[in-house]
Amino acid sequence: MTAAGVLLTVAYDGGAYAGWAPQKHAVTVAGTLLEAIRRMAPAVDEVRGVSRTDAGVHARGQRVAFDAPENIPLRGWVLGLTRNLPPDISVRAAARVETGFDPRFHSIGKRYIYTVLCDPLRDPFLEGYAWRLPEPLDLEPMRRAAATLLGTHDFRAFRAAADERTDTTRTLRRVEVLRDSADPRLLRVIVEGDRFLYHMVRILAGTLVDIGAGRREPEVCAGALASGERALLGQTAPARGLLLDEVFLDREGTERWPP
Amino acid sequence: MTAAGVLLTVAYDGGAYAGWAPQKHAVTVAGTLLEAIRRMAPAVDEVRGVSRTDAGVHARGQRVAFDAPENIPLRGWVLGLTRNLPPDISVRAAARVETGFDPRFHSIGKRYIYTVLCDPLRDPFLEGYAWRLPEPLDLEPMRRAAATLLGTHDFRAFRAAADERTDTTRTLRRVEVLRDSADPRLLRVIVEGDRFLYHMVRILAGTLVDIGAGRREPEVCAGALASGERALLGQTAPARGLLLDEVFLDREGTERWPP
Repeated sequence: MTAAGVLLTVAYDGGAYAGWAPQKHAVTVAGTLLEAIRRMAPAVDEVRGVSRTDAGVHARGQRVAFDAPENIPLRGWVLGLTRNLPPDISVRAAARVETGFDPRFHSIGKRYIYTVLCDPLRDPFLEGYAWRLPEPLDLEPMRRAAATLLGTHDFRAFRAAADERTDTTRTLRRVEVLRDSADPRLLRVIVEGDRFLYHMVRILAGTLVDIGAGRREPEVCAGALASGERALLGQTAPARGLLLDEVFLDREGTERWPP
Repeated sequence: MTAAGVLLTVAYDGGAYAGWAPQKHAVTVAGTLLEAIRRMAPAVDEVRGVSRTDAGVHARGQRVAFDAPENIPLRGWVLGLTRNLPPDISVRAAARVETGFDPRFHSIGKRYIYTVLCDPLRDPFLEGYAWRLPEPLDLEPMRRAAATLLGTHDFRAFRAAADERTDTTRTLRRVEVLRDSADPRLLRVIVEGDRFLYHMVRILAGTLVDIGAGRREPEVCAGALASGERALLGQTAPARGLLLDEVFLDREGTERWPP
């Protein structure tokens, strides 16, 4: 049986998972997906995801590749896997790629959406998908701060201590703060860039929230870019508000299904 | 200790509950709420809800009254109960009413929203809150049929067999089919009326879906109103797509909190 590469687009509610990356003693999204794949093709032994989302982080457009017998059609992977997966994970699309294809090496950008709910009381429908704050936020200073982050900068202040990469220059092509037109309690921070440091979007969101609440000046963002000082910035916003919305690849594969 | 009436506005994700009404061997929303109330006021022995939502049905504006010691302020009820309740139930507001107040006898109307997701593939974020259909729906005939339901009619065709009430005349003041502007896969059927028969909104939604899919003519609604024949109509749409959005009372109580 010849093997062929399959590239999936996967959506998940990360609330019940210990993140994307497989772990021995925890239920992860990649681990759950691999199990479902092996029910269709027992020889598959790894999946290659593009983004190692943290525990509790959600995704609409995670991309993941694996090699499997080529006799299973793309439609079979999409429908068969979704049937084998729990309701909080769904395969949204599949495409053909060469064997060994690793989407991490083809990623040219990602879009994240961070959702903030301004409400003094709990909302059962948004509890798992937003960072709830009791106070209203002032958008104008948040937007001013967001604008200073656009473009290419050294973002070393915007990362968790655990991230020890030496190259910390990143390019953000979109940092927007939007209020939901149907539900004014909801704010969304939309961040699109080439690559991201560990916790970068969550530190950015936590800082914008502090600025919107009047606890920090909009100038701290420019200051942190210049000095690299993490202490100038706000807290790391909670995982449940973060969504990996889309991953942009330099090659999308062929024969996409659904077409 | 003098007793006083408390009127709550309660929101819940009904997915995990066997409906509103207390049952001996099942976890219900009213039962869970009563437990939380009794942790603050052990003598309370009943809650009086306005709508007995079915298993799996959601609510944003359920109204419920009970009598409790008057020394607990409204703010204490809202914050204290929400703290004692699981994340899928939240108290959104409280007001003072007289003891024995039963919101069922003060209801002058309700608004329901039924959500349909047109998507051939599962969406993990909407799975529990919408009826998912693989095919797109044609809104125009759905809207034509909806218009014939407006006003005062004998709705006996639009109820489950278990509903044996003799008075089946109801008035609908709003029946609208809207497409979500941000997510065109989502359709919402908004139904507002004075009172509702058992499964009335779900039969109405199931019928409009059949009409939108071309499986029934828009004229079946008028035909069913005239003949009372349930068989002319579509299936009872699944509970998970239904939301009790708001209940209108002829008296809202006093000293509302939050103000």
